[in-house]
Amino acid sequence: MEQKMVSPSLLQKALGEFIQLDEKITHYSSILGLVDWDQKVMAPKKGRNIFSKATGTLRTEIFQLSVSQEMGQLLEALTLENHYLQLDQVTRAKVREYKEYYQKSKAIPADLFKDYSILTAQANDAWEEARDKNDFASYLPYLEKIIDYKRQFAEIFGYDEHPYDALLDEFEPGLTVKRLDPLFAKLRKSSVELLNRIRKHGLPTKVEVFEQSFDIDKQKDFNRFILPLIGFDMQAGRLDETVHPFAQTVNIGDVRLTTRYLEKNVRSALFGTIHEAGHGIYEQQVNPIYEETVLQSGASFGIHESQSRFLENMIGRSQEFWHFFFPKLKEYFPEQLKDVSVGEFYRAVNTVQPSMIRVEADELTYNLHIMLRYEIEKALIGGEIEARDLPAIWNQKMKDYLGITPGNDTDGVLQDVHWSFGGIGYFPSYSLGNLYAAQILRTIQKAIPDFYHHIENGKFEIIQDWLKENIHQYGKLYRPNELIHMVTGEALNADYLIEYLEKKYAEVYQLDKR
Amino acid sequence: MEQKMVSPSLLQKALGEFIQLDEKITHYSSILGLVDWDQKVMAPKKGRNIFSKATGTLRTEIFQLSVSQEMGQLLEALTLENHYLQLDQVTRAKVREYKEYYQKSKAIPADLFKDYSILTAQANDAWEEARDKNDFASYLPYLEKIIDYKRQFAEIFGYDEHPYDALLDEFEPGLTVKRLDPLFAKLRKSSVELLNRIRKHGLPTKVEVFEQSFDIDKQKDFNRFILPLIGFDMQAGRLDETVHPFAQTVNIGDVRLTTRYLEKNVRSALFGTIHEAGHGIYEQQVNPIYEETVLQSGASFGIHESQSRFLENMIGRSQEFWHFFFPKLKEYFPEQLKDVSVGEFYRAVNTVQPSMIRVEADELTYNLHIMLRYEIEKALIGGEIEARDLPAIWNQKMKDYLGITPGNDTDGVLQDVHWSFGGIGYFPSYSLGNLYAAQILRTIQKAIPDFYHHIENGKFEIIQDWLKENIHQYGKLYRPNELIHMVTGEALNADYLIEYLEKKYAEVYQLDKR
Repeated sequence: MEQKMVSPSLLQKALGEFIQLDEKITHYSSILGLVDWDQKVMAPKKGRNIFSKATGTLRTEIFQLSVSQEMGQLLEALTLENHYLQLDQVTRAKVREYKEYYQKSKAIPADLFKDYSILTAQANDAWEEARDKNDFASYLPYLEKIIDYKRQFAEIFGYDEHPYDALLDEFEPGLTVKRLDPLFAKLRKSSVELLNRIRKHGLPTKVEVFEQSFDIDKQKDFNRFILPLIGFDMQAGRLDETVHPFAQTVNIGDVRLTTRYLEKNVRSALFGTIHEAGHGIYEQQVNPIYEETVLQSGASFGIHESQSRFLENMIGRSQEFWHFFFPKLKEYFPEQLKDVSVGEFYRAVNTVQPSMIRVEADELTYNLHIMLRYEIEKALIGGEIEARDLPAIWNQKMKDYLGITPGNDTDGVLQDVHWSFGGIGYFPSYSLGNLYAAQILRTIQKAIPDFYHHIENGKFEIIQDWLKENIHQYGKLYRPNELIHMVTGEALNADYLIEYLEKKYAEVYQLDKR
Repeated sequence: MEQKMVSPSLLQKALGEFIQLDEKITHYSSILGLVDWDQKVMAPKKGRNIFSKATGTLRTEIFQLSVSQEMGQLLEALTLENHYLQLDQVTRAKVREYKEYYQKSKAIPADLFKDYSILTAQANDAWEEARDKNDFASYLPYLEKIIDYKRQFAEIFGYDEHPYDALLDEFEPGLTVKRLDPLFAKLRKSSVELLNRIRKHGLPTKVEVFEQSFDIDKQKDFNRFILPLIGFDMQAGRLDETVHPFAQTVNIGDVRLTTRYLEKNVRSALFGTIHEAGHGIYEQQVNPIYEETVLQSGASFGIHESQSRFLENMIGRSQEFWHFFFPKLKEYFPEQLKDVSVGEFYRAVNTVQPSMIRVEADELTYNLHIMLRYEIEKALIGGEIEARDLPAIWNQKMKDYLGITPGNDTDGVLQDVHWSFGGIGYFPSYSLGNLYAAQILRTIQKAIPDFYHHIENGKFEIIQDWLKENIHQYGKLYRPNELIHMVTGEALNADYLIEYLEKKYAEVYQLDKR
C-alpha cells in the first residue's frame, strides 16, 4: 500500500499552482463583470443576443476551472492536515471559498444540475409573462419544480436542523433558521407595533414635496455632485443609468454604479445612488493585497447590504445629512423646495407608507416585506406549505403585517424575480443588512462619538476610513459572523435595529408628544 | 508501418471539433474586442492597470487555443487531401485563416517570440517618451532591434522575391513588392505633379471657414444626425468619444465607433465619424452566417480601409454629398456658415495643404505620406538602409514629395506609433484602401449610373445595399485580391485613383480654367 508522501516542495508547488488558478478565475470573473455591466448599460440592442453566447462560453469556462480535476487535486493537497497547518490566514480563506464551491458543485449530479439550469432559464421567461398578465397559475408549474429541486439540493448539501439552512448558507455562510428565527420574530413584532403607532398617532409628513417635477438633468448633476463628497472615488468608478439600479465591480479600481432617474420621483435616483454608493465604496476600499484573488469582493450578501443601507439610511436619511445637503439641493431645485424647511424635508424623506411593492418600501416596512418572504420560503422548503398555497398566504401576511392586501398577484406574490432564478434563501440578506447596519452604527458611534456631527459638516472621510479599517479592507477574508463579532464585539442582535427605528420614528412622527 | 486511415466519420468529427474551437476563439475575441473598447472609452482611470492583466490572460488564452495541439491536429486532419476536397468554400476559408496563423506562430521559436513581445512593450513606452522629448537617439536602439527581429521573421516566414513581402502578407495577404512597386510609383509621380500644379495654379479655397469655433454639443448632434442617414445602424452600434478615433466590432449587431470633437476644427469629428462609419457599416453588413466564426470580420486591412475611405472621400467629400447635407449643417451652425455657399464649402473641405503630419493630411497628400513610409520600410527590411539613417531620409523624402521639411523629429520620423509595436508592413494598407476605393467607385458607377444623383438626394440605401451585396456580406471569405477581382473584374490598378484625383482637383482648384 502506498503512503501519501508530503514534502515542503510539494506544498510550494500546489500553492503556486493554486495562486495561478485563482488569478485566472478572478481575471475571467473580472472580465465577466465588465461585460455583464456593458450589456445592461451600453450595448446596442441588436448585438446582445449573440453576445450572450460569448458570455455563456466564458461563464462555463469559469465554472469548469472551479470544478476542474486540477482544482480538486490542489484543494486536496492544500487541505492535507500537515499542509493546512502551514497555510497563512489569507490562503486558508481562499481555500475555504473554492472548497465550498467545489464540494457543492460536485455534490449535485451533472444531469440534475443541467435540468435545473434549463428550468430556471425557462422559469424566468414564464415569471415575466405571468407577472405581466397577472397569471399565477401559468407560473405555478415552474415554481413547483424549482421548489422541488431546491428541496433536493438542501438534502444533497446537508444541514443540521432545518433544510432551509442549506439554502441560507449559499447567501450568508453559516446562517441558520435557529439563529434567524428569534432575530426576525422580534423585529417583526416591534415593527408591526411601531407601524400601528405611526398610523394612529403620527404627525403627517409633507411627503407631497416629492410629487413635483424635478428636472432629470439637474438630478443627474446633483447625484454626481454628492457621490465624491460621501466617499465614492470617481477615479475608480462610474455612475450610469439603468432601469434596475445595481453596483458592479470590475476590480478595486473600477466599480460601476447605476441609478434610475424619474422626473416625478426625485427620491428614486437620490437614495438609489446613495445605496449603490454604499456597495461601491465597500468594494473600492478592499485591501489591494486581495486584488486578482477570490477574496477581492465583500464578505457576504448580508454584509454587503449592511454597507449600502448604512449609507442610504443611517447616514442618508439622517437629520444631519440633510442639514448639510439640503441647502445644496435647494440650489438645484429652488422652485420646488422654496416653501420647505430642512426639518420638513428630513421628515418627508422618512415618510412611512405601507405599499404592496418591496422595492418601493420605506425603512420601517421594508423589513416586514422580508419577514413575509422568509416565512414563506422556510415553510416551502420545510414542506409545510406548497407553491399553490402562496397567493392566499401572501395576501394574508400582507394584511397581518402591513395592513394592506394586494389587489392582484402582480402586485403580490409575482412581484419579485428571485424565485424564478432559484434564489431561495436570498431575501433574508436584505433585512440582515439592516440588522448588521444598526449594530455597526452603535459601534461606530462609540468609536467616533461626534459621528453625526461629522455628517452635519459634510465630513465623511473619517467615517469611511473607519469602515475601511474595520470592515471594507478585509474583503472576503472573514466569514460574516466572524466579521460582525470582530467589529462589534458580539453576535448579531436585533435590539440595535429595533431601538434605532423606535428612536428615529418617534422623532420623525413626534410620537412622544402626541 | 502504419498507414493513415481516413473515414467519413473521422472528417465529421474533426469538422465538429473545429467548428467548436472556432466558436470558442471567436467568442473570446468578441469579448476581448468589447473590453478593449471599454478600457479606452469607459473605464475609470484607477482600474485600467490591473484590468490589463485580466485582458492579458484572455489574450494569451486566445493565442494558446489558436496554436494548441488540438488546433494543429484538426488542421492536419482537415487538410488531408481527400478530406480537403470534401470541404465547402466557407470551411476552407476558415481553415485557411487558422492555418496561416498557426504556421506563422509555430515557425517562430517560443523564446524568440517572447523576447520580441517584451521588446515591443518596452519600445512603445520608449517611443512615446522619445516623441514627447523630440529625442530620436533614445528610441533608436529599440527601433534597431525591432527591425532586426522583423528581418529574422521575414526569413522564417519565407518569401519568393523580397523579404518585405513576408511582412506585407500579414496585413494584405498575397501582396508583394513586385505588385506594389509599380502601383505606388505611378501614384506617387502623378500625385507630386498634381500637387505642384495646385500650388502653382490652383484657385485658393475658403479654408478659413473651418478656423471658426463650432460648439461641440452641436457637432455631436450633427454627427448623430448623419450617421443613420448614411447607413450606419444605431441599433447595432454606438458612437462615443476618444482621443484617437477607431471602430471596434463586438459582433455584427454591435459595432462601436469613436470620434474626436475639436471646437476649433469641425472637420476632425465630421470626417472622422464618416470614415469610421465606413468601417462600421462594412462589419454590420457581414452575412450573419459568419457570426461567431473567424470569417465575421472584413477581408483585409486594405479592403477595410477602402470602405472607410470610400465613404469619407468618394462620398463624404463629393459635391453631391454637400448639396444634400450643407443646408442641414447650416441649421446647426447658421452663424459660422452664413456667408458660405455650398460650392465654396465643397471646395473648402477638399483643400489641399501639405502638412508634416500624416493623420492630418488631405486626400491627395495622404498617399505621399504613405509612399515615403513604404519606401523606407522596404529598404529597411531589404537591408539597404539602417534605422540610424531614418531622420535624414525622412526629411529628404518629405521635401521631395511634399515640398516641406519637418522642423523636428517629433513632427517627422517619430510621429507614428506603428513601428514601435512591430507593425512594419501596415502603412501600405492606407493607400491600398484609396486605390481599391477608386476602383470600386468606377464599378459602382457602372452598376448604379445615377450614383451621385442618389447621394445628392440623401439616398444612401441603394449604395449601401450594393456594397453589402458585392463586398460586405462576404466577411473574410475571400482573399483581398480575389475579392477585388470579383467585384471590379480586374486586378488592382492605380489608374482609377489617379484619374479620380485629377478630375476632382481640376474641379476644386479650377485648374483647367487657369
